[in-house]
Amino acid sequence: MSDARREGLTVLKLGGSVITDKDQPYTVATEQLEQVSETVATHSAGQLVIVHGGGSFGHAAAAAHGVSTTEGTTDAGAITEIHRSMGELNRAVVNCLQDAGMPALPVRPLSMAHRTGTGLSLARLAVDSMLLEGFVPVLHGDVLMHEGTGSTIISGDELVVELATLLDATRVGLCSTVPGVLDDDGVVIEEIATYDAVADVLGESESTDVTGGMAAKVSELLSLSTPAAIFDPAALAEFLDSGEAGTMIR
Amino acid sequence: MSDARREGLTVLKLGGSVITDKDQPYTVATEQLEQVSETVATHSAGQLVIVHGGGSFGHAAAAAHGVSTTEGTTDAGAITEIHRSMGELNRAVVNCLQDAGMPALPVRPLSMAHRTGTGLSLARLAVDSMLLEGFVPVLHGDVLMHEGTGSTIISGDELVVELATLLDATRVGLCSTVPGVLDDDGVVIEEIATYDAVADVLGESESTDVTGGMAAKVSELLSLSTPAAIFDPAALAEFLDSGEAGTMIR
Repeated sequence: MSDARREGLTVLKLGGSVITDKDQPYTVATEQLEQVSETVATHSAGQLVIVHGGGSFGHAAAAAHGVSTTEGTTDAGAITEIHRSMGELNRAVVNCLQDAGMPALPVRPLSMAHRTGTGLSLARLAVDSMLLEGFVPVLHGDVLMHEGTGSTIISGDELVVELATLLDATRVGLCSTVPGVLDDDGVVIEEIATYDAVADVLGESESTDVTGGMAAKVSELLSLSTPAAIFDPAALAEFLDSGEAGTMIR
Repeated sequence: MSDARREGLTVLKLGGSVITDKDQPYTVATEQLEQVSETVATHSAGQLVIVHGGGSFGHAAAAAHGVSTTEGTTDAGAITEIHRSMGELNRAVVNCLQDAGMPALPVRPLSMAHRTGTGLSLARLAVDSMLLEGFVPVLHGDVLMHEGTGSTIISGDELVVELATLLDATRVGLCSTVPGVLDDDGVVIEEIATYDAVADVLGESESTDVTGGMAAKVSELLSLSTPAAIFDPAALAEFLDSGEAGTMIR
């Protein structure tokens, strides 16, 4: 590789709204997922970790059981149902990436993460080993053990931030359905450095999203030392090639 | 609980031959699995971790791809196929345990284990949290990352030994289809203290078993500081009540 920026580790989030039909429960957006997978296979270089959101899978299941990132459940049946709904979506994502030629493997947060009073912890052992052996770990928003409350939700965005920090990522990208964070005139804001500067324009996501929408994304990405990009599928190749696309948060 | 031996942590292995029809690919032994689940729900006390074998699920998939505990593969498709076959069986086991009233949750070794030149490592974080929150983690023989060779198989027996050591289990039990280790006359050997003493009578498992059979079980259990029992489903209640059944290995 001639471009130094193409080395190192990229953490790429595929938004639930990109890979599922958010208005149809448990429905994969097959064509879009295939296109995104092709783009990833063609343009990615260096090590890659993929995280995907829940879209119409996990969010629907979590909402049905009243579980969120803060509201927990101790019902093993509910936990399993939410986890399996995300497993089904993860299976589709892994399949599509493999069909496009990527050595993608599933990693299930319920098996390697927990949340305590002091925050989120991930057991990185399997992800590290997969990267070392040349695979692409594919994680997803999930249920996880939460000290004292049974189980809560871990969002894909939280996973991205935690993995980027833990693995010392050189690039972080969130591929969403919008081309970036938009100002009041619908124009992409090129760069965000503080939350206050954009607090006014950050609204709520329209579909059911138990994990927060754009405001939560920006807030979490601002906590990273690595610059992060928010962009749409049309800019995915640009992000993978250059590390920059849509709105840059630094 | 009046019996001190009923406290502490039990690691219980449900043999693949107990919960599947080993001669019919990808077939759960539904009635036997239900009976075993009811017995576990009725007789278990204290903390419990369950590990199950592959039976006609994982062994068939692993054999089809030529993967074993020592022969690896770097084919993401093969790894995923073996992993999913075990996920399907794990789903049936978790369902049955939940139906019997146990707060069972799946834990996938591919997401939390790896093997290097110096041995096997498990990231215990999720298992610990599940136990702390009152759940019953249910692990299974699986594929795992193996340094330098992509991925190999981790047997349920290996997991039992590793978990028992890691979690400082007070009781270890392997529920198999035989009532214990049998001598040449078909009588259960009550106690085994060294491998040499029983080397002659330990034959090979008849069905496809990529992870070794009885000889490997005994050899691995002898490495434990905790006494371990090998027994059949008829003695499961006895094991859960007293910590002793079938052949005791110490």
